[in-house]
Amino acid sequence: MNLSNFNREIAEIRNDRVRGASELARRCLAILAEAAETLPAADCGEFRQRLLALATELAVVRPSMAPIANLLRRWKARVGTVDGDLETFRRLAAKQAADLIALSRQAVLDCAAHAARWLGPGRTLMTHSLSSTVLETCRLLRDQGLRMIVTEARPLAEGRRVVERLSAWNVPTTYITDAQMGVFVARADGVLVGADSLLANGSVINKAGTALLALAARECGVPFHVCCESFKQRAENEPPPELEEMASTELEVPAWPGVSARNVYFDITPARLIDAWISETGVRQAVAAP
Amino acid sequence: MNLSNFNREIAEIRNDRVRGASELARRCLAILAEAAETLPAADCGEFRQRLLALATELAVVRPSMAPIANLLRRWKARVGTVDGDLETFRRLAAKQAADLIALSRQAVLDCAAHAARWLGPGRTLMTHSLSSTVLETCRLLRDQGLRMIVTEARPLAEGRRVVERLSAWNVPTTYITDAQMGVFVARADGVLVGADSLLANGSVINKAGTALLALAARECGVPFHVCCESFKQRAENEPPPELEEMASTELEVPAWPGVSARNVYFDITPARLIDAWISETGVRQAVAAP
Repeated sequence: MNLSNFNREIAEIRNDRVRGASELARRCLAILAEAAETLPAADCGEFRQRLLALATELAVVRPSMAPIANLLRRWKARVGTVDGDLETFRRLAAKQAADLIALSRQAVLDCAAHAARWLGPGRTLMTHSLSSTVLETCRLLRDQGLRMIVTEARPLAEGRRVVERLSAWNVPTTYITDAQMGVFVARADGVLVGADSLLANGSVINKAGTALLALAARECGVPFHVCCESFKQRAENEPPPELEEMASTELEVPAWPGVSARNVYFDITPARLIDAWISETGVRQAVAAP
Repeated sequence: MNLSNFNREIAEIRNDRVRGASELARRCLAILAEAAETLPAADCGEFRQRLLALATELAVVRPSMAPIANLLRRWKARVGTVDGDLETFRRLAAKQAADLIALSRQAVLDCAAHAARWLGPGRTLMTHSLSSTVLETCRLLRDQGLRMIVTEARPLAEGRRVVERLSAWNVPTTYITDAQMGVFVARADGVLVGADSLLANGSVINKAGTALLALAARECGVPFHVCCESFKQRAENEPPPELEEMASTELEVPAWPGVSARNVYFDITPARLIDAWISETGVRQAVAAP
């Protein structure tokens, strides 16, 4: 790897519309592992500083996705304390990245295991957008009478990718446009969504449309669950999150004069619309209003 | 016109995804006027019965759209009392249809005039789906600092047709996916939508997604207005309305095994989420909760 490869990788992370926040965070760690092992370097101390600077650069590429910043912060803390010669440093910095990748993968599996236990067999669940944690939960429940309702998730319709997997697993599935959320949520026993970030107050940043689904679920008394590992938690003292906006070309509309096509990718679902938060450590239920 | 032309016209009304309820109701009246003038007939009494039967058939073709049933019921009542020979009957039956078409057109214009006065100059308004009453309101306000936020309205994206008109009128417009409703409604001074039917309790049947927009508007304190002529009112004693479902091919997804793609076109916005109903007779505001 050289620096121009690295910059290409950063651009790929920035433009990725397919992978969720956890997956992209692991991809960032894998890029740093490769950089640690292969970027040209002469002196260990100077190389460490360069690597840490690259991690800082990667950490801000997708501001709506907390696990990228969180896992990279952890990696930087560990790498900052690694001692030894250049070769040892390369090996240990790469190993720290690999360890964190394994930790993140395990957290996703543990989240899904808790979610599957909590939701139980014979359920009809509704989801919005693509979440690897939600998909893993569906895999665990696929032989237990699970039925799914999946939204399209415009503009790029990652709901289709969810449905492809569910279809391959023989999970009976209903596929709808985002605008039909309000019509179909009443037919679900519960909503299960992933998250890109979890705010300190329990609110959730996820694909645009999630907040609408939470409002519709509350309106008809269907419980709304968020399932995400604690790497997605933003600290109390972090500045308010930026809701990323992507290219309006994804909407595939003509350039009408005087018209601005907008493509804000994320929204914030307020904590009071969430009935349970499921993480790798278990389930936290909302406290019932007095 | 012969009977097979008539059946072709019925199929066209059934499959029309472009025109709103008022426009289609007027189209139905125009079809009946043409039938009255040109269908072969020998005897006046027998012809009257045939025409009334055709009107009954037309009236149920789009069950979510109240003005079709309402205007056709009025036409039938008027035609039922027309006397005279066959030629006189033909002329008067066609004239009744033309009169009702004019009445419906005028009602739309009067609605829009009330809406424009009520909403006033310098507003940013948000709408969902295509309504001729909303468009007419925009036309009236276009030189008064109006700005619009328009949703796509999947599956067939009639929001694009709205935006084309707004662009031609130089109204600064923001175009978004349906999933972004929750993000953008807070930037509006009010929501203005049309309706396909108005239920006796004040709830509104309109394009799927309208109920989500009403929930999002209430969530951030943005007033939600429905603008429609009283021909859209369903009577108290009518059976609960059917929410029409259209072909799932409109979603343009593959036939995944075990997956059912659904295309429910309408949803019901409950009256308690509506702040004002605007009709050709004026504005009725919701009574504030005690």
